[in-house]
Amino acid sequence: MVMTKCDQASIKTAGLIIIGNEILSGKTQDQNSFFLATELRSLGVSLLRISVIPDDLEMISKEAALFSSAFDVVFTSGGVGPTHDDITMEGIAKAFGVQLMRHPVLERTFHERYGKAANVAIMKMADVPAGSEVVEFETRNFPLVVFRNIYIFPGIPRYLQEKFNLVRERFRTSVFFLKRIYLRATEADIAAILNVVVEKNDCVTFGSYPILGNDDYQIIVTAESKIEADLAVALEELLGKLPGNIIVKIA
Amino acid sequence: MVMTKCDQASIKTAGLIIIGNEILSGKTQDQNSFFLATELRSLGVSLLRISVIPDDLEMISKEAALFSSAFDVVFTSGGVGPTHDDITMEGIAKAFGVQLMRHPVLERTFHERYGKAANVAIMKMADVPAGSEVVEFETRNFPLVVFRNIYIFPGIPRYLQEKFNLVRERFRTSVFFLKRIYLRATEADIAAILNVVVEKNDCVTFGSYPILGNDDYQIIVTAESKIEADLAVALEELLGKLPGNIIVKIA
Repeated sequence: MVMTKCDQASIKTAGLIIIGNEILSGKTQDQNSFFLATELRSLGVSLLRISVIPDDLEMISKEAALFSSAFDVVFTSGGVGPTHDDITMEGIAKAFGVQLMRHPVLERTFHERYGKAANVAIMKMADVPAGSEVVEFETRNFPLVVFRNIYIFPGIPRYLQEKFNLVRERFRTSVFFLKRIYLRATEADIAAILNVVVEKNDCVTFGSYPILGNDDYQIIVTAESKIEADLAVALEELLGKLPGNIIVKIA
Repeated sequence: MVMTKCDQASIKTAGLIIIGNEILSGKTQDQNSFFLATELRSLGVSLLRISVIPDDLEMISKEAALFSSAFDVVFTSGGVGPTHDDITMEGIAKAFGVQLMRHPVLERTFHERYGKAANVAIMKMADVPAGSEVVEFETRNFPLVVFRNIYIFPGIPRYLQEKFNLVRERFRTSVFFLKRIYLRATEADIAAILNVVVEKNDCVTFGSYPILGNDDYQIIVTAESKIEADLAVALEELLGKLPGNIIVKIA
């Protein structure tokens, strides 16, 4: 998917693991995937996989191990609270054969914040896979924990977004250049032309998306690349081959 | 996750594969996951995994093989149009070592519908993994193709929903019974109590979800089961242990 010759950045790829029965059962609509997909794209990172899995130790463990080795950076969402179904930390520790350890910064923070109310459930949230980094934080909420290349986020969208903003600049890399071509046509009309241009332009990714219920255009073709010059060449070629009267706009 | 003794239905589990670069890059917000999660739950089916992957032959093939063996029924969304990035059928065929074959019903349908406009791109959509079933259809759109236990849906939400409605009754099984308990408390307050009740009630699944910005309640605890009597026992036990003054409502 991400060809090395087309992307020289050090952080190229990301994977996202959404942990939570409530998403799979339709009780809650996932908002974190779209937020992170949008953010990562604007930072230049290719999100290559999203996996939504239950609050299940074995599944979390397997997915964390797989994602950590497959992608440059991994994000998890959910399962970091104080109740029985919050087992993300345990799952990640299991994946790498390390113990859960009480992190001194978290322990101190929770004691300061909760005082006598810092019971076993609260202190459970201070237990992280041995070797985890705690990212400095200024918000009222829980700190962001990072284990190896895995960023462990809470599931509540507002908290996830606050924490992501603490670290987003770590991921910024060379950006994608994108053009959208709006066409008055069906996909069948342009498929043959598109195929020829796709074949010849290795470092440009094309997409074709039908749009329903719009009188002005019926397809958006997207062309994108990390190499601006390659995108310009591909775009010129495509526009040269498409019948001029179906091109509504380019943006 | 789904314990056999707690669920005697023949269709118990489902997996969903969302295929599309446009979701991973944040260009489009996925609506199909939430729709199918909600529908499957109301039919009594446990959706156990959602995977969002790129338009990549190898990834589609691997995921289709994995999901087909892991779950009773599998749904895919996207990648069934006429352009170069529509390779879902090819990926599924590869997963099972079968050829793509032109399906006679689809071939006839497309010829009737498009006449002379039925070019190579259009007819590509008649090529399905050998052995596929075509579900009868009355809508104007493309038919629903089923290969083994894999239901192959288009990515456009309106089309996916229309097609799902053609077959939804195939999946109906024993339903889940669900109770929500709204609490004026923090998760830390109730975690210990919840743990005891969770331990003792094998066939009941509990969830605990913090709610932000609500003055009336701050947690929703969910309890659900396919066995109504077990749910009643667990609920009674939980309500007996929780302090009465934190219970806002049960629904």
